[in-house]
This record gives sequence, C-alpha cells and structure tokens, in this order.
Amino acid sequence: MNNFEFWNTTKIIFGAGQIASLREQIPAGARVLITYGGGSIKQNGIFEQVTAALEHVTWFEFGGIEANPHFETCLKAVDLAQSEQIDFMLAVGGGSVIDATKFIAAATKHSGDPWDIIETFGAAVSDALPVGCVLTLAATGSEMNPTSVVTRAATHDKLFFNSEYVRPRFSILDPETTYSLPPRQVGNGVVDSFVHVLEQYVTYPAQAKVQDRFAEGLLSTIIEDGPKALSEPHNYDVRANLMWSATMALNGLLATGTPGDWASHLIGQELTGLYGLDHGQTLAILIPAIWTYKLEQKQAKLVQYGQRVWHIQETEPEKIAQQAILLTRQFFETMGVKTRLSDYGLDESVIPAVVAKLNEHQFTQLGEHGDITPEDAANILKLAL
Amino acid sequence: MNNFEFWNTTKIIFGAGQIASLREQIPAGARVLITYGGGSIKQNGIFEQVTAALEHVTWFEFGGIEANPHFETCLKAVDLAQSEQIDFMLAVGGGSVIDATKFIAAATKHSGDPWDIIETFGAAVSDALPVGCVLTLAATGSEMNPTSVVTRAATHDKLFFNSEYVRPRFSILDPETTYSLPPRQVGNGVVDSFVHVLEQYVTYPAQAKVQDRFAEGLLSTIIEDGPKALSEPHNYDVRANLMWSATMALNGLLATGTPGDWASHLIGQELTGLYGLDHGQTLAILIPAIWTYKLEQKQAKLVQYGQRVWHIQETEPEKIAQQAILLTRQFFETMGVKTRLSDYGLDESVIPAVVAKLNEHQFTQLGEHGDITPEDAANILKLAL
Repeated sequence: MNNFEFWNTTKIIFGAGQIASLREQIPAGARVLITYGGGSIKQNGIFEQVTAALEHVTWFEFGGIEANPHFETCLKAVDLAQSEQIDFMLAVGGGSVIDATKFIAAATKHSGDPWDIIETFGAAVSDALPVGCVLTLAATGSEMNPTSVVTRAATHDKLFFNSEYVRPRFSILDPETTYSLPPRQVGNGVVDSFVHVLEQYVTYPAQAKVQDRFAEGLLSTIIEDGPKALSEPHNYDVRANLMWSATMALNGLLATGTPGDWASHLIGQELTGLYGLDHGQTLAILIPAIWTYKLEQKQAKLVQYGQRVWHIQETEPEKIAQQAILLTRQFFETMGVKTRLSDYGLDESVIPAVVAKLNEHQFTQLGEHGDITPEDAANILKLAL
Repeated sequence: MNNFEFWNTTKIIFGAGQIASLREQIPAGARVLITYGGGSIKQNGIFEQVTAALEHVTWFEFGGIEANPHFETCLKAVDLAQSEQIDFMLAVGGGSVIDATKFIAAATKHSGDPWDIIETFGAAVSDALPVGCVLTLAATGSEMNPTSVVTRAATHDKLFFNSEYVRPRFSILDPETTYSLPPRQVGNGVVDSFVHVLEQYVTYPAQAKVQDRFAEGLLSTIIEDGPKALSEPHNYDVRANLMWSATMALNGLLATGTPGDWASHLIGQELTGLYGLDHGQTLAILIPAIWTYKLEQKQAKLVQYGQRVWHIQETEPEKIAQQAILLTRQFFETMGVKTRLSDYGLDESVIPAVVAKLNEHQFTQLGEHGDITPEDAANILKLAL
C-alpha cells in the first residue's frame, strides 16, 4: 500500500426529508445564492423545499447552468454574487451545478483573470465563498470532494481544478430528489459513478485489500441497483444505495494508497469539449477500448474484477479479463449508454482533433503508469469506433 | 436505509515514515503534552521519532497510562496539563492512550467535577484541548472517532463518552510502529476491530448494500491478514491492511443508515471493569454467546455473513448461521484469544455482579432492538461459561 493522506471535511446529511435541515446548515442572516440547472427543480417541488428551509437568510437565484457547465455562464453568476454581496453558495442539482458553483465560489473571491483558476488546476485559488449542496443526481461525487470541471465553450476546453477552498461544507443527499430524473441522466450517472470506481481499481495490484474490497462492494451494488433505478424509479432503497455509492466512489477513500488511471476521464473530456457528448457516454466508449489496449498491463486487476465482481468461472486469466471487458460493456448498454463512437455519429475523422487537444492541454502521459501518449489515445479511439 | 449524518474531520496521515510529518501538524510554539503507555515507545524508537519531529514546540511527557485507562491516572495528567499550560495533546500509543488523552483534553478545560464528563456520556464537554495521535496499535478506531472509554478503578466502572471536541485533529498511522507488538496485543486488536464491524453488521437487514459490503470487505481482510500478523510480524502490507481496517471499522462509516448492536461491548465493559479481562477477550467471549441467544432475530444477517464472508456452502439457514458462529469462534481462537469465561478462570459466580453493574449503569435495553435486559445478559453469560 502506498503512503497517503486522507482528509474529508464535508458533512453529509442523508435521507428523505433532509432538505429541511438547511436551516441548521446555513448561518442566519447569510446572503445566499441558490444555483441550479435547467429548472426541473421548479417543477418537481425541490426548489420549494429548499426555499421553505431558507426563511432565516436572504436568498438570490441563478438558474440555467448547463450540463458540462460553461465558464461563460459561471462568469455571469460571479457578477451577480459580487453585486449582491453573496456570502454563501448553495448548489441545488447534480455534478454540473455543483462544479459550476465551486468555480463561482472561487472566482468571486479571485482578483485576477478567472481562467487562472482552471489553468493552474486550482493552485491560484486562495479563498472562496463557502459552498453547500442539495444533490439531485447520483453521479459525479462532486458533493464530497474538492474537484470541479468547467468547459470554456468558446474554445472547446473542458478542464478540471481542485481546491480545498471549494470543498462543500455540507451536502444534503435525499434519494427522493432523484425519482423524477429522465432515464438518460440515470444511465449516465450510473456509468459515471461506476467508472469512478474502476479508475481507482482496475490499475495494478497495490496490496490495498480494504480499498479493493470497498471498490468491489460499490461496483457490485451499482450493478445490482443501476438497472432497477430504470425499472423501479420510485424504489427508495435502490435510489439510496446508488446515491451513497456515487458519493463514496469519488470522495478520496478509494484513492488512499492506490494508483489511479483516469485516462478515460481525460480523453473523454476532450470528446465532450469538442463534440458535446455526455460525460457518461465518453466513459462508456473509452473504458472498454482502454482496457483492450492495455490488456496485458491491467490483466491482474481485470482478473480480480472479473472473478470477484462478475463471478466469471473461466480459469485462463486472459479469457477472464476479456470477459470482464465484455460484461462491463454490456452493463453500460443495459443502462442505455452506448459504447462506441459510431453510436454517436462519430468516426475516425475525430481522432486528430482529440489528439491535438490532448497535446494542447499537456495530457501527454496518461494512465496509472503515465505511459498513454496522445498517439496511444489515437489507437484507443480506433478500438472504440 | 435509515437517514443519517456523517461527518468525520480527522486528517489521516498514513504510511512508513509519516511520524516526521508531525512538524507540519502541530503549530510552532505550541506547548505539547505527549501521552503514552507502559514505555515500549522508548525501547522501539517511536518516542525518538516523535520528539525528533517536535523541535518547533515545547513538549512535556506523561507516561504510564494503563490498558483500560484509569480515571485516576488521567486526573494526574490533567494536573500536569493545567500547571504547564499545555495547549496541544499528542497521544502516542493504542486505543487506551488515545482514549485517556481525549479525556484529559476535555477534563483540562472542564470546570466542575471531571466525572461529569463520563456520567453525562460527554454532554458536559463544552471545550477541550486539541488532540493529535500517533497510533501504534490497530484496534479500537479511537484515532478517527469522538469516543473515549475510561475506567474508574476505585469503583470498577468502565464507561464511555462521546464529544466532537475530542475528535483527533489528525492521526498518523505508520504500520511499522506495530511490528514489535506482543502477540497478545495483536490478537486482541484483531478481535476488537473485527467485532466493531460485526456490531454494525450482524443485526437485521436494512437494505444498506454499500455499508454491508464495506463491512464484509473489512471482515474478509481481517480474516486473511490477522493470522499473518502473528506469523509474519514484519510484513508491511499485512500491518497496513490491518491498521486501515481497524480505523475504517469504527470511524462512523459503517454506522451510516444501519442499526447497531453493541451489547457485547457494553456487557464486556462490565467484565473488564470488574475482573480486568482484556477488552478483546470480553468480546471474544460474548459475541458467540449473544449470537447463539439471539439466533432467530439475527439469522438473516448471520446467513449473509456466513455466505459472503466465510463462503459456507450449507443451504439450510439455521445451519449456515450456526456454522458462522463456530467459524467466528475458531477465528478468535486462532488469534490466541479464548472464547469462554472458564478460559479466564471465571465461572457462574460472576453473573450477579455483572447484572448489578448493568443495572447500576442503566444498560437495561441493549442490542439493536433494545430488548436485551440484564436478565438476558445473565442467560448470555451462562452460554459463555
């Protein structure tokens, strides 16, 4: 096991009805900016629940945050936050809203060019407004980590930053808020949380038994309950297990003492930035291709994954690994998320643009060994056509 | 899944050589009281490592904290902390040292009778000195939780308190510090951490799939690596996996959304308070007896445990449950921890005293259903003779 630090100060308030606890989480008299996405929270009652719990503060609202939130949109919210002297940010939504809110929280307190925050991967952040979350989609894990992904629409750059200053002070996770999600978002969310686990697990053996078993436990839970979220959308326990799985998948716990891959995320970001694919779609395309390309390096963990998570009965390691890849692809498809570029109308012609963006962003040493170059990414994309 | 709050602010610094990071964890110029136990840290080099990293502070030391730390011993340390105007407590040891240090941290800032802290289960605590830890024994989980257990030797009362004020700010977990532990402490530590998981898992089904699988992952890891800690005491990965398992076993994560039993801990506390048995010994005695007594209520989870953790091939539920109890007992014995009162020279004559203490401490509704009375405890102890 590698040495590590683990420190996660986000308070989680989990369960049906917990939105009402907002009144204990935000100081009385605060000036709160509520951020949200396309406005579904105004149809499904969540906005009303939130504002009913905010009688002790002065609140403002900023809606219209898009999936893969735009830098340009965030800047409008920064203007509002500054002009209204906001002192608390409350994200109500999924990962995109939370990520945008983290960026707004940091940019509001940043004196230079806000793009500095992204360009330095967060190093330029020296202060931020406090952030709280009401999560409405089980997917990204942003509700319990210091990471944010923002897209500059003008230049097709989708990039992340990390800062402890934007780690949520609290996150309210009410599984009932996810009942009304459209199937496409459920599928993407399941794929996203599943791949977060895989990125930290299907690497190479690090003798980290607890982390491996936690990863396998999350994967098994998502495999069991992911399809049920589509077939029984109002099943509370299913939604609860998926929500807690997604949070646990990317709150730092699985990363303790273990290597991380993250190539599918970084190549996938370019696909989203350039062609607008959903984040979950990019992961579903890339994971089987990367594993096929890196079969030998990843074989030991793929075998462990195949045996412990998928209960594959084969005895030959290479066959177990290949079957694990196939079953993973089938699982994504079961969740309604297609796994090939051609399913999204993309072909070989996209490869040079992705390679160029990887070079531009200096993502030239990807994967747990740092040996996936942009040229390798081109070969991987060929396997994903 | 039940509603829950989860909030754990302890920073974990894990791995070989991490004691040196103490210089970043404690503010320069602090007046630090180093607390420790019987003095083994002065023979195995840990005390030297600690003080070498404390050149930036003024430190004092208080040794001689016993297993099941005495209230009376702690009060001496409180005097020292007050007279030397200590402003940071650094526990260097296992659970007993950390628990004592938490009590000292609270009592130093408490104006009334220090026993108030225990008698109110922590409610009387309104301030405490900050606590940091260097863990040297994988067992109690105290390094990442707000709980402390202290014994008033004069009256044979072993009791716990909880307070967020005494939750460690940081804990340094260097698996190498555990290489030189005597086998008895290794065995007790393994049983303790194993039973912490069981208390939060072998209850009744709560549809908490993540928590169940995390529990099963910890149990499987401890079963694999516990005996290896005895046979290969210098195996780093074994020590690392056991250390991380013990911390995860009682940091609040397994308790999220699930019922807890804790009868073996509360009855066991009386056995330790009255007769001085090691904490791990009391658990090894009580768990098989409580499960046998509550076989019907616990059968569903015992079956899940038997199948997933012990891979029992039986098909009849009651037989699976009974075999799971037997295998658990055998595992404790493998770790050198005996599982019957008679193994420790105790017989039926101890039962009335235990029952009287349970009544005195108002522990009259134990177990996950609150239906284990002191009379039930008497029956359980009869099964443990």
